[in-house]
Order: sequence, then structure tokens, then C-alpha cells
Amino acid sequence: MSPFLGEVLGTAILILLGDGVVANVLLNRSKGQNSGWIVITTGWALAVAVAVYVTGHVSGAHLNPAVTLGLAAIGQFDWAQVPSYIIAQLIGAFLGAVLVYLTYLPHWGITDDPELKLAVFSTGPAVRSPGANLVTEIIGTAMLVLGILGIGHPANNLAGGLAPLLVGFLVWAIGLSLGGPTGYAINPARDLGPRIAHAVLPIPGKGSSDWGYAWIPVVGPVIGGILGALLFKGLFG
Amino acid sequence: MSPFLGEVLGTAILILLGDGVVANVLLNRSKGQNSGWIVITTGWALAVAVAVYVTGHVSGAHLNPAVTLGLAAIGQFDWAQVPSYIIAQLIGAFLGAVLVYLTYLPHWGITDDPELKLAVFSTGPAVRSPGANLVTEIIGTAMLVLGILGIGHPANNLAGGLAPLLVGFLVWAIGLSLGGPTGYAINPARDLGPRIAHAVLPIPGKGSSDWGYAWIPVVGPVIGGILGALLFKGLFG
Amino acid sequence: MSPFLGEVLGTAILILLGDGVVANVLLNRSKGQNSGWIVITTGWALAVAVAVYVTGHVSGAHLNPAVTLGLAAIGQFDWAQVPSYIIAQLIGAFLGAVLVYLTYLPHWGITDDPELKLAVFSTGPAVRSPGANLVTEIIGTAMLVLGILGIGHPANNLAGGLAPLLVGFLVWAIGLSLGGPTGYAINPARDLGPRIAHAVLPIPGKGSSDWGYAWIPVVGPVIGGILGALLFKGLFG
Amino acid sequence: MSPFLGEVLGTAILILLGDGVVANVLLNRSKGQNSGWIVITTGWALAVAVAVYVTGHVSGAHLNPAVTLGLAAIGQFDWAQVPSYIIAQLIGAFLGAVLVYLTYLPHWGITDDPELKLAVFSTGPAVRSPGANLVTEIIGTAMLVLGILGIGHPANNLAGGLAPLLVGFLVWAIGLSLGGPTGYAINPARDLGPRIAHAVLPIPGKGSSDWGYAWIPVVGPVIGGILGALLFKGLFG
Repeated sequence: MSPFLGEVLGTAILILLGDGVVANVLLNRSKGQNSGWIVITTGWALAVAVAVYVTGHVSGAHLNPAVTLGLAAIGQFDWAQVPSYIIAQLIGAFLGAVLVYLTYLPHWGITDDPELKLAVFSTGPAVRSPGANLVTEIIGTAMLVLGILGIGHPANNLAGGLAPLLVGFLVWAIGLSLGGPTGYAINPARDLGPRIAHAVLPIPGKGSSDWGYAWIPVVGPVIGGILGALLFKGLFG
Repeated sequence: MSPFLGEVLGTAILILLGDGVVANVLLNRSKGQNSGWIVITTGWALAVAVAVYVTGHVSGAHLNPAVTLGLAAIGQFDWAQVPSYIIAQLIGAFLGAVLVYLTYLPHWGITDDPELKLAVFSTGPAVRSPGANLVTEIIGTAMLVLGILGIGHPANNLAGGLAPLLVGFLVWAIGLSLGGPTGYAINPARDLGPRIAHAVLPIPGKGSSDWGYAWIPVVGPVIGGILGALLFKGLFG
Repeated sequence: MSPFLGEVLGTAILILLGDGVVANVLLNRSKGQNSGWIVITTGWALAVAVAVYVTGHVSGAHLNPAVTLGLAAIGQFDWAQVPSYIIAQLIGAFLGAVLVYLTYLPHWGITDDPELKLAVFSTGPAVRSPGANLVTEIIGTAMLVLGILGIGHPANNLAGGLAPLLVGFLVWAIGLSLGGPTGYAINPARDLGPRIAHAVLPIPGKGSSDWGYAWIPVVGPVIGGILGALLFKGLFG
Repeated sequence: MSPFLGEVLGTAILILLGDGVVANVLLNRSKGQNSGWIVITTGWALAVAVAVYVTGHVSGAHLNPAVTLGLAAIGQFDWAQVPSYIIAQLIGAFLGAVLVYLTYLPHWGITDDPELKLAVFSTGPAVRSPGANLVTEIIGTAMLVLGILGIGHPANNLAGGLAPLLVGFLVWAIGLSLGGPTGYAINPARDLGPRIAHAVLPIPGKGSSDWGYAWIPVVGPVIGGILGALLFKGLFG
């Protein structure tokens, strides 16, 4: 399998399981309806871990343009491959969102609130405040990339196969602790791919795809990812 | 121990701990009553992990006809052994359900709703819609088998004894994220064996065993399991 | 350190962290009050794991007469050491309960219900039915001992230091799935030691120590532990 | 990177993710508002694990003066480095708290209760009772340091990279089980650094920083940390 296909597959799994848990918690009559933040964050954490186990050995499982750009910024990834990785991640995220749409097919029509339906696909702010929301996404994504590089530092000498689980737990931590204000996009593809899917899929009673907010979960994570990588490089050499 | 007995034992453990957690959450006056989706999904995840630790080295711990058929479909399991594996899984699932019945003996008579009693044994749809329910089970089971094969890929080079835990975490992910519409049977034996137990056990005030729905958690997982295995084979060779 | 002291220390840690989580969930104005079954079962799971990490290499960390007797019944532990192990476990459980009493000192007097105060120390049935309660404890403890032996089977070839965590996760599974009817004592020392502590400590407004029930979480786990060990021996040789 | 900087960075991560989860649960309109004790304790557990993965190989990742002093008390750490480690931990904790302030910027002004705002930064007692609160912190921190030393005992022969996760799980256990009365500071820097941040940051509508209580989460953990280390040394040699 090519790295391109690896990123498509991995990001599709990430979004199927990640947006899937949001659907479970938000959509009407779903068995996990209103089961809370612990369910959402555990679901996203395991989504990351599963996606990395399946595709890590193919493409490195970035699954996130902020990771790809961060790694390129410190010379750990070839800039020439960056565009194809990001395109693959966006395609995968879109496909994963389509699978969530299919998995929860009978629940869209019986859920009244159009904002809940959008929230399954894309993040939105608890309090709309562009500057502050951007800061939150920058801090969360810097923590993500610094954490990934820290976990993977050779001095940790990880036992075989432990790293994907630990990266999942890192995302668990970020969701639990930093996800409150913006829903922790921390990944431009995770937000933009499903937002496009929301815009094009025939979801009954859907509302706006909130394009006015869409730049924040793209720009914030890109800045944060590069910042986190530079911080790691600056501190650990 | 023979592989046949391994599958019986492993599937019995899976259902004892899996249907057990549903009993805990749904039955009246149980100490875990109404403790929610995080309890149900964590319980099923650990049920899988425990069952695989106990029987993995005996039979490979398929514990699921969808896994057995998926592996056979891509040449990773001998078709000649498929029937005995499936029979063993059904016997084990039936026995596990009997143990759940015994464990929660005083709680059947004090639980009024017959649908809750059936839900301890077998899955049911949040919204009854055969085509959509089938799609949900296909996607969930494809994710299961693709995930199992992905986790077990030699390139992951897993540390000793990590794989059963990770397969449990994969099931945790599926339950959290894809379990909302149908309760994630993703295993024909998990659903059919306990449904037979529900039909034959002397459960006070029980209602229908809902045989009209019973084909979906059999057919869906079989299609999904084979699909997931073929997808893995097609992508990873 | 002698194995005797290892069992005292390990069981004290088990009960400090195990009964501690129950205190947190049940006692009035505690920060974890009413935080539910997921908190209780996660707390007990990690209590087991921590206790085994600290004392496993000293005494094998049985921490439970049902485990000690089960292992002796299949020749994996010397009968001559059984009495001293059980005495050590009871002493440790008593000491752990005293530490819980001290940790939650201001909360006893402001908690009205005497049954909640007893429930911090010892298990009680959701529905009082001696025969059924005994069956529940037998099944739970058989699962515990079968699971411990299964996880430790050499064929699992566990990576260093993974076993205590997995035994903790086994107890998590049992609590989530089989704990509903009786609160999963599955350990005579875990129940009897703290019950004695409840009887002798100056707990404000305490009620009965419910000695009428006390034999069930002793006899049930002893039968279950031996049964689980024999089942393992019979099946796996 | 110097050990000093390692402790600054590690403690900043610890507090960013640790105080961050409290902000998520307590602040008004945060997406994790009122999501309960399981969220808070899981967040703190993973905060510890992430911080140790990132900085463990630099400074040993004490991240806690009680750990530093405990290790020094039994000759496992050089007394000459103790002051710089403690200063680094306090600086890191202060910086982490500032990052939490920034991450949750729009939520301070819309949260009415000043006690909730302080609770994001520093611990406070469920029932104010200095002697009892001190005992709780001593027991919790003794368990922490005894547990860290126990997990790290060479006889456990841990697989590479498992230790930081297990130390995180130890903190999970302490939070779940012993955190009810005082919110488990178990770390003077974790409490004092953010309390100073609370005092100096321009938090809208903030109240007292409760300096009257501030000595307890400093003195209790110091006593407990040394006690736990001495207990380990006395028992395990």
C-alpha cells in the first residue's frame, strides 16, 4: 500500500470512529445519547490508536496536516510529500464522515437541532470568540505534536507496539483537559473534511455548515503543530 | 485443550462478562443500574480482552463467526474447521448467557420491562429499520475484522501479550463510536446464542425474543466480517 | 521483606484504594460523591494493579484467600503457607480499612445513612437472597481465579510488568459485569477484614455490621476460587 | 536540555493538562461541564503520564517536590539538587496555570462562582478541618511515593516505556480513591504554583486565593512523600 492510501485509510478510520462517537452521544435515540464527555474523549482516543495501529507502518500515520507540517518544519518529514499527505488526509476525513452518516442513517431525521447534526461532523466553539478560540486550538495542537515527539523520543525505548496506544492516550488527555472551549479539532483535516461532507450529504433538516468558523480549526492547528514541533526541536535538539 | 473447547470456553467468558455488564446496567436494583454507555462499552471491551487472554493460545480466540469466516475468506483459516468453530462459538455464547442468568437471578423478577430483559441477552435496534440496521452492523464488523488484522500485522511488532488487550480496546472503540444505532452485535454468536438462551430460560415476566430482528445481527456481521477481511487483504496484500 | 509482610502490605494497599473509592462515591460531601459505577470499578481495578506492582515480587501478591486456596488446590501453592497468607491478608485488609477511616475522617459524621457507611467497608446484596448471592459470588470468584491463571499462562508470553495491570483489568471486568447483585467481594479478606474494622472503629452514627450476611462473601469466594482453579487445571492441565 | 528545564517543562505540562481538566469540568459552558469525577481523575492521570513521557529521560520527571524530597530522604536523589528541582517545579506549575488561563479565556467571565474559579487552580477541602485534611494529604502522598518506588522496583522488570503510564495509573487510583476529602494535591508545586497564578492573573470576578488553606497541600505532601519513601526503604531495603 502506498503512503497516500495509508493516510486515506487511516484518516477515514479516525473520523469513522471519532465523529462516530459524537454521533452516538448527540443524535436522538442513539444508545449512547447524552453519555457525556468521558464517552466522547475515550472514543476519540481509541479512534486515534486504532487508526495508527492499522496504518502506522504504511505512512507513519500522521492523519493530521498539523502533524505533517510540524514534522516537515523540523526536518523530520520531506516537504515534497506534504501536499499529497494533506490531500490524502482530507479525502480520508471526508470518507470517514460519509461512513458515519451511513452508520447513523435513521438518526438524522429524528434529531431536531441542526447544530447537533453539524457538531457530529465538525467542531464549534462553546463561546464564539475567534481570537480566544484560535489560542485554544494553538495550545492544544502544540501539546499534541510536542507530546507525539516526546513519546517517540528514542530515550523512552518503548516496547513494541506501545506507541500508537500512547498517542491515543495523549489525545485522550488533550480532549479531557483542553477540549472544553472548542471541542479540540487539533487537526485541520478532522474538521474540514467532515465539514465538506456535512455540506454535500443529504442530511435531513441540516442547517448551516458554519463556514465562518471553519478557518479557526484549520489555522489554529497548523500554527500549533509547527509551534509544538519547533518547541520540541528547540528543547530536545 | 482442543480448539473446539477453547472456542466454547472463550465465547462463554465473552458473553458472561459482556451480557453481564448489560444486566448490571439495565436490571432493576442492580448496583450498576443506569450507569450508562461508558460502563457498557468498557465491560464489553474487557470481556473480549479477558476471553482472548484465556483462550487465545488454544484456538486463536476467534469467539465470533464473523472473524472465523473473514479469516477463512482470505486464506488465514482452514474452511474445514469453520463449521466446528461456529458451533463451538454458539454453544459458548449460550452457556455464557445461562451464567449471566444465574449471576443476576434475583433481578429478573423485579425488573418490569420485558424489553430490558431481552436487551441483556441480545441486541436490538434503537430505530427499527432493517436496511439501515444491516448497514450499521456491516460497517461495525468490517471495522472489527480490519482492525484485528491491522493490529496483528507483523510490522507492528507487538510486545508479548499486548494483542488481546488491544483487540479489547478495538471493541471498546467500536462500541463507543458505532454502537449507537444497533447496540453493536458485530458477532452472530454473541447475538444468536443468548437469544436462544432467552427463549428457553425460565425468566420471570419475559416477553418476545424478537426473532424478526434476529437475522440482522447474523447476516450483517457475516457480510461485514468478510468485507473487512477482503479489504485488509486487498490493501495490505 | 517476608512474604507474610508482603501480603499484609499488599492487602492494605488494596483496601485503602478499594474501600477508598467506595468512600469517595458514597460519603456525603466527598468530591466524588455519586460519581457512579465507572468510578467504583475503575478504582478497585487500579487498587489491585497498584497493590500487585508493589508486592508481587515479594509474596506473589495473592491478597485474597480465594486465590491462595485456589492455587493450593491445584498444587501451585504450598498448603503449609496457606494459614499464614490468609492471616496476613486479613491483617492487611483491616489496616487498609483503618486508613480509609482516617482518610475520610470528616465525612463519617456528616453522612446520615448507616448502610452507606457500612458499604464503604464491606459488601452487601442488592437483593438479599442468600442462595442467589452465594451463586453470584461463586461465579465471580471462579472467573477471577480462572482469569488470573489464564492471563499468567506461559503461552501468553507477557511483556515484563504487564501482568499486574492485566489482573487489575480482569477485576475491572468482573466489577463492571458481575458486580451488580452483590458488589463483587470475590475475596473473603476484602470483606471480612474491613467488616471487623467497621465493628471496632469509632464511626459516628454507624449501624449494624450485618454479620448475618458476612458468611456469604467468605464462603462464596472460597468455593468459587477453588472451582475456578480446578476448572483451569482440568481444562489446561 | 538541562534537568532544571526538564522539570519546568514537565510540571508545566502536568498543570496544563491537570488544571485544564478541572477547568473543563467546572467552568460555565465548557463542553465538559459537570462531566464528573471520572473525567477529572482520568485527566490528571494522563497529565502525569504525558508529562513523564516527555521529560522522564531528561530529569527523571519528579514534577513534584514531595517526590524529590522523598527520594532525597532515602538517598536516591542528591540533596544538592533539591532546591533547584523544587524551584523548577514551582515555575513550571505557574506557567502551566497561565496556559490553562489562556486556554479557557472566554469562560472565566461567564462563570459566576469565584470558588469554582479558584478550584481550577488549587485544591480545597470538601470539609474544612485542618488536622484531618493534613492526614488525608499525608496518606495520599505516602501512597504516591510508595507506589512510584514499588512500580519502579527492578524485580518488576517493566517492558520499555511502560513505567510512565503506570505512574499515571497510580495517580488515577489515588484520585479515584483518596481524592474525595481534599482533591488530592499530593504535590506542593501542583497546588502552590497555580495558587500564585490565581493571585496574579487578571481573572474576571475572581475571589480569594484562600491562603489560609495553602499550607496544607504543601506540608501534607512533604510529610507524606518522605514517609512513603522511608516506608519503602524500611520494607524493601
